[in-house]
Amino acid sequence: MTIKGSSENRPARIRLGMVGGGKDAFIGAVHRIAARLDDQFELVAGALSSTTEKAQESGRLLGLADDRIYTSFRDMAIRENRIKGGIEAVAIVTPNHMHYQAAREFLKRGIHVICDKPLTSTLPDAKKLAALAEQSGALFVLTHNYTGYPMIRQARDMVRRGELGEIRVVQAEYAQDWLAEPLERSGLKQAEWRTDPERSGAGGCVGDIGTHAFNLASFVTGLQLESLSADLHTFVEGRALDDNVHVMMRFAGGAKGMLWSSQVATGNENALTLRVYGSKGGIEWAQEEPNKLWFTPLGEPKRLITRAGAGAGEAAARMSRVPAGHPEGYLEGFANIYAEAARAIIAKRNGETIPNDVIFPTVQDGVAGVAFVDACVRSSKRNAAWVTP
Amino acid sequence: MTIKGSSENRPARIRLGMVGGGKDAFIGAVHRIAARLDDQFELVAGALSSTTEKAQESGRLLGLADDRIYTSFRDMAIRENRIKGGIEAVAIVTPNHMHYQAAREFLKRGIHVICDKPLTSTLPDAKKLAALAEQSGALFVLTHNYTGYPMIRQARDMVRRGELGEIRVVQAEYAQDWLAEPLERSGLKQAEWRTDPERSGAGGCVGDIGTHAFNLASFVTGLQLESLSADLHTFVEGRALDDNVHVMMRFAGGAKGMLWSSQVATGNENALTLRVYGSKGGIEWAQEEPNKLWFTPLGEPKRLITRAGAGAGEAAARMSRVPAGHPEGYLEGFANIYAEAARAIIAKRNGETIPNDVIFPTVQDGVAGVAFVDACVRSSKRNAAWVTP
Amino acid sequence: MTIKGSSENRPARIRLGMVGGGKDAFIGAVHRIAARLDDQFELVAGALSSTTEKAQESGRLLGLADDRIYTSFRDMAIRENRIKGGIEAVAIVTPNHMHYQAAREFLKRGIHVICDKPLTSTLPDAKKLAALAEQSGALFVLTHNYTGYPMIRQARDMVRRGELGEIRVVQAEYAQDWLAEPLERSGLKQAEWRTDPERSGAGGCVGDIGTHAFNLASFVTGLQLESLSADLHTFVEGRALDDNVHVMMRFAGGAKGMLWSSQVATGNENALTLRVYGSKGGIEWAQEEPNKLWFTPLGEPKRLITRAGAGAGEAAARMSRVPAGHPEGYLEGFANIYAEAARAIIAKRNGETIPNDVIFPTVQDGVAGVAFVDACVRSSKRNAAWVTP
Amino acid sequence: MTIKGSSENRPARIRLGMVGGGKDAFIGAVHRIAARLDDQFELVAGALSSTTEKAQESGRLLGLADDRIYTSFRDMAIRENRIKGGIEAVAIVTPNHMHYQAAREFLKRGIHVICDKPLTSTLPDAKKLAALAEQSGALFVLTHNYTGYPMIRQARDMVRRGELGEIRVVQAEYAQDWLAEPLERSGLKQAEWRTDPERSGAGGCVGDIGTHAFNLASFVTGLQLESLSADLHTFVEGRALDDNVHVMMRFAGGAKGMLWSSQVATGNENALTLRVYGSKGGIEWAQEEPNKLWFTPLGEPKRLITRAGAGAGEAAARMSRVPAGHPEGYLEGFANIYAEAARAIIAKRNGETIPNDVIFPTVQDGVAGVAFVDACVRSSKRNAAWVTP
Repeated sequence: MTIKGSSENRPARIRLGMVGGGKDAFIGAVHRIAARLDDQFELVAGALSSTTEKAQESGRLLGLADDRIYTSFRDMAIRENRIKGGIEAVAIVTPNHMHYQAAREFLKRGIHVICDKPLTSTLPDAKKLAALAEQSGALFVLTHNYTGYPMIRQARDMVRRGELGEIRVVQAEYAQDWLAEPLERSGLKQAEWRTDPERSGAGGCVGDIGTHAFNLASFVTGLQLESLSADLHTFVEGRALDDNVHVMMRFAGGAKGMLWSSQVATGNENALTLRVYGSKGGIEWAQEEPNKLWFTPLGEPKRLITRAGAGAGEAAARMSRVPAGHPEGYLEGFANIYAEAARAIIAKRNGETIPNDVIFPTVQDGVAGVAFVDACVRSSKRNAAWVTP
Repeated sequence: MTIKGSSENRPARIRLGMVGGGKDAFIGAVHRIAARLDDQFELVAGALSSTTEKAQESGRLLGLADDRIYTSFRDMAIRENRIKGGIEAVAIVTPNHMHYQAAREFLKRGIHVICDKPLTSTLPDAKKLAALAEQSGALFVLTHNYTGYPMIRQARDMVRRGELGEIRVVQAEYAQDWLAEPLERSGLKQAEWRTDPERSGAGGCVGDIGTHAFNLASFVTGLQLESLSADLHTFVEGRALDDNVHVMMRFAGGAKGMLWSSQVATGNENALTLRVYGSKGGIEWAQEEPNKLWFTPLGEPKRLITRAGAGAGEAAARMSRVPAGHPEGYLEGFANIYAEAARAIIAKRNGETIPNDVIFPTVQDGVAGVAFVDACVRSSKRNAAWVTP
Repeated sequence: MTIKGSSENRPARIRLGMVGGGKDAFIGAVHRIAARLDDQFELVAGALSSTTEKAQESGRLLGLADDRIYTSFRDMAIRENRIKGGIEAVAIVTPNHMHYQAAREFLKRGIHVICDKPLTSTLPDAKKLAALAEQSGALFVLTHNYTGYPMIRQARDMVRRGELGEIRVVQAEYAQDWLAEPLERSGLKQAEWRTDPERSGAGGCVGDIGTHAFNLASFVTGLQLESLSADLHTFVEGRALDDNVHVMMRFAGGAKGMLWSSQVATGNENALTLRVYGSKGGIEWAQEEPNKLWFTPLGEPKRLITRAGAGAGEAAARMSRVPAGHPEGYLEGFANIYAEAARAIIAKRNGETIPNDVIFPTVQDGVAGVAFVDACVRSSKRNAAWVTP
Repeated sequence: MTIKGSSENRPARIRLGMVGGGKDAFIGAVHRIAARLDDQFELVAGALSSTTEKAQESGRLLGLADDRIYTSFRDMAIRENRIKGGIEAVAIVTPNHMHYQAAREFLKRGIHVICDKPLTSTLPDAKKLAALAEQSGALFVLTHNYTGYPMIRQARDMVRRGELGEIRVVQAEYAQDWLAEPLERSGLKQAEWRTDPERSGAGGCVGDIGTHAFNLASFVTGLQLESLSADLHTFVEGRALDDNVHVMMRFAGGAKGMLWSSQVATGNENALTLRVYGSKGGIEWAQEEPNKLWFTPLGEPKRLITRAGAGAGEAAARMSRVPAGHPEGYLEGFANIYAEAARAIIAKRNGETIPNDVIFPTVQDGVAGVAFVDACVRSSKRNAAWVTP
């Protein structure tokens, strides 16, 4: 068995820069592990913090050369674009409100962008960014990391192959409990910016995690959202943004859906789940047990399809590193986004067409995500009226 | 260990009649087992079918005396009320649209009524029936059987004792898949009347099972529904009633909820679930594993409370027959409603006050259930506008 | 849907007596519910306790006529055999050491015996009883109740139809934790007699629950035990009998097995499980989720077969009362033994052949069970030497 | 949150060599990912295959410099020991029978060894290797990778802190199904060497995975095995080694255990499980859901302790990279062994004492593992007699 993630047939590593992700940042460290897992990226430059001292300390801790530690992402974009061996791609892992400006600097210099979600903190920014990305020759990869799970690829593939028949009902949930108390007032940085409209945008929970659930449902089903009715709630007193979200959805073609997203649901750690029911079968998946996909063909017993096990097809196999029963998790799923990005970047580097089976969330998925958040906020302000995203 | 359900300290069995529930009826047979399980009822009379031949055949098969097999519930009510040793209580297990008329005949003669849900097929009927029941000296017990599960009693008790703090979010689901195809056109009686507005009322799936989920949420949380927004769908072509229901709810006091009910969700057999999250803790329960209640106190590990196990209190213990680990199921939960009814009926028989801890769904719960269905239908017709139930 | 357990086509109820099972007895009450559930038995006589006062009080509480409350099982056997309308069958639910003597009195008078397990407290008694039962025209039904679960019937049927291929490995477990502390010294009657060699026999945990696990494995696989090696342990100080049992087994034909049984395994309520692996597939079942049977055909995804669901066959359907997703439990499984007994008794009553598909544990299964316990004790005394049961 | 696995405070990467692990090898690729995950090792040299051509091709695919691709591990040891910047540590990932010779070459030159399990293919080799390792100043790390799972660290810590009381019963299992058919005759290399006594040693399944289960039980409980009785079986015709193993164990201090290991248990992918019961509580863990540890304190409800969740202590937190609910898996657990090794190696490099809380399986654990396999084989040959390992 040749396992993915080994470096076999490896081309030169992709030179990667990072914006954000200094000391104490959570998602920056995740991106670095994800980039490293399959040995296809090498982190060589960073604008890791907007404060000079922290940027430098963080850069050194990561072993960056001094002259490739920047305190401004703009400076980094300009110089890296000029020097020989400058970065080929940049990971943007700042709070949401900075994504747009940072991405712009790199895109316009032809440097590929791997950007954390949500795409931007406002819909106009998202659309402008999409336009930029499409004019640019550079790739834009959005790390809706949950689309990297092998069983999500399997699910998507099953939908496409018609194994569920015509989709009728979509149930998407993303429940957490870590904001059940006002942690943002206890100095926890993760909580602070996520509950601050200046940095997160108009959506709190809906933007932070609701958008993941929406993206996952879209990714798997391929359905287009036509309209939604959303009720956003804030349960923790004094919180400026929503911490619980109820959404009803209507998709083109007649499918209907519900989405629940919460950060005050005590007993839920990271309970992203997706259930899709069609005229010929149903599937159920939960992020906390990502190696399992439950599939019930109409009128038959429920089946457990496992990553790399019997019943899992090529779409899952491509995203899998170790045999069935050896659980892969969050980091491997995240790394799969990087692995797909690497295949695309290397094709570009070699002047080749990007292979057809390379799949990653794009800037257009990002626009759809921000539009979803925007629509939820608009709908909720109008007493959950149906709105078009 | 003295187990509940043994006949210890048994007063004379309650003489029971039944309306509906002839040969081939599902729920009538369930009521008979439930009544028999704890040996407190004796079935002595029946108007088991509206067709004479079937009523007689069914009655004989059940061992009823010939002169207590009726072909009209009205005749049964009149005669049983007159004869010595006539029935003390009647179980009404007809399709929904007949509940009102049947119940009326018995209530006005002081015969206790144990009636299947939903209370009636229309809201005006429900209200009239409630008025009748309240004027009558007789008891009215609605078999929202899922409230009979011990761990549901435990959950309700925990909410009342404040273990969840202030309720914030309620997630109720009831998903099945048996109507994913048009069984009503293949001659299946169960499917026929449930999808027929004449016999079921204006709600299909919402009335058949959505109302169970709503009742369960109300029973456990004690919350009052203030308004709802519902989107009802019919996925199977040619079906006259809804087979999938999405509802958003707002409760008095600020709690919010969602309810999903479906009969086309392939892979779900009888997936009634309830999740309740409060400021101090969360609970999760699933009907298909009814002996388990998951409880997470904020900031502590999730705990598994089991029926008759450590952590289960008096409210659950009273409803439990066998030790922990010996699973009780649907029939035992259903029988608990009959056991509670028996305690009330015997108190009445003896001229005593009904004990405080006797709990069963009442005619008022039935009105609330029909009002819920009515509100869902109204809301859905108005594009999911918020309506008051 | 005509559900089993309704009284349709009901012949006259079988007149049942009971030996043991007075106030405070656990298993007696279970037998009464089991007998009642399907309305085919009527309890009319009892020798419920060996102390006169308790026998009478218990009998009255159960509504027995005064002249059918006995203080001696022998008196009961003699008189019930003589009177018109005397009992047709007797349930023996005493501690183990009395099974033999009680059963003998009824068998020799042609009264059918339904006896709790283990058959007797010694192997010679078991063999004598088997001889008696076989001479007698009466039926002998042993309530190894777990064989009554529908999915166990399904599993047995799958083995017989060859869906597992040739059986290779059998893993049987029965773990509890209620004797993790010396409850027998705190006055709990259930604990007292189970840990007393005079009343239980030479096996403690192995006789109380190990024998259930062994019986279940035998029932499902049909394998004959050739030899075993057992290590019995007593962890609670001062306890006279084993409270934890490890067994290795070799079956005729080459299959191998392990059996673990414990009453000190904290965190296990009633964890009877069976896993069987053959050359073509494997099955897994757990008593605490009895409606589910996991089946993996070699090289295919695991499937969940549910009671009354897709994939469950006739063997399970016959033992099932309510639709899939409406959980049945311990009492229903127990009642299935009574239901099978009823079919056999009524065939006998009518002078008919017992139908081929009537299946219940017999006196020979009882002998096998006692021989298993005896062999475990012998082996353990010889340092876990291999012995023949 | 500063996550582990980021490169913060990173000393220079440890220069790593590898023996074995060429193209198509499974475990070599796993070691490389594990070494890379936390960015503390850099693979710089390799003797990746014993065939020249494959060694070179594999080395180039991994990006090794030509002069650090070796075709003999002895050459590699000699030269790397001499050159400046030679490897500091070597990962040995060959089939079992070569571990001893390879390790010897590096140990005697003071190069740290990270060796796959089992330690060797014979017990004498294991003892000699242990002696060598102890004379050497170099570290010896055995990749019993399952000890790297955070919840296994948590379990071990709970045992040490007395939360389970005195250990009574240990149940260890490791069941797979991939050898249910004779894959070794279909050209699958993984199957070939594992079923070949020349390369695996005298144990098949028991050496390949039984030894993992034994190691895990020892690691968590700290118990010393006094004697065992083992029954080894070969179900697939023509196979030279065991494919199913039953073991009873007696530990110093009175605890008892069972161990089942199988590679023919259809429906099991990689079902390594451990259950430990003591006088005060019980724990249960399954490798396929490694982020969960079930803990039942005697007389209290079962609790779910999750990695990085409430209830998980420092021992788990140190081994954890991402927040609760973001599943970590097999590769992360494996990487934790490398991370612990890195801490020890860097302490050595700096002339410091290895921190007390650095924990990894050592050569002595390896000897214990091989002695376990040896004892199982001996016992089984003597009809499962009790033997001392």
